[in-house]
Amino acid sequence: MASEILVDYRQKALSLLKLDADKILKLIQVQMDNLTMPQCPLYEEVLDTQMFGLSREIDFAVRLGLVDQHEGKKLLDKLERELSALHDAFTKK
Amino acid sequence: MASEILVDYRQKALSLLKLDADKILKLIQVQMDNLTMPQCPLYEEVLDTQMFGLSREIDFAVRLGLVDQHEGKKLLDKLERELSALHDAFTKK
Repeated sequence: MASEILVDYRQKALSLLKLDADKILKLIQVQMDNLTMPQCPLYEEVLDTQMFGLSREIDFAVRLGLVDQHEGKKLLDKLERELSALHDAFTKK
Repeated sequence: MASEILVDYRQKALSLLKLDADKILKLIQVQMDNLTMPQCPLYEEVLDTQMFGLSREIDFAVRLGLVDQHEGKKLLDKLERELSALHDAFTKK
């Protein structure tokens, strides 16, 4: 029973982090669909703020022992690759 | 045993948040001791960034079900009062 609760918190932590990463991706997608230039300082600021917020959440989950460091880094790296692909697709339009 | 783990995570989450609130307070204290003006845009930016980071951590802990919303708000309010007292003490020097 104890390990079930542990697994539940681990899974919940990871799902919440994935959800938040997805929200950032969608936010950036919306910005691009509305033709806000990626060179726009506001775009950079929004992205930086969101990435900082997510990295703080991941860091917190790692410190709590709910997500391991490697897993957290992987999640952030994946989001960065997706954002970069989005950015490339936009600038090539 | 299951409830022990739950209590442990709740306690750990709250201690981590308190630790981070304390870090912000100390950071601001150091800035003031070194006579960086509170009107300085950099000071405002550091403070805003740190407060945003902490509020994201608190929010995450609340969503995980480890900290209740009221408790999270109390922690943030307390830090804001302490920062405000620090700010007042500095500007009255």
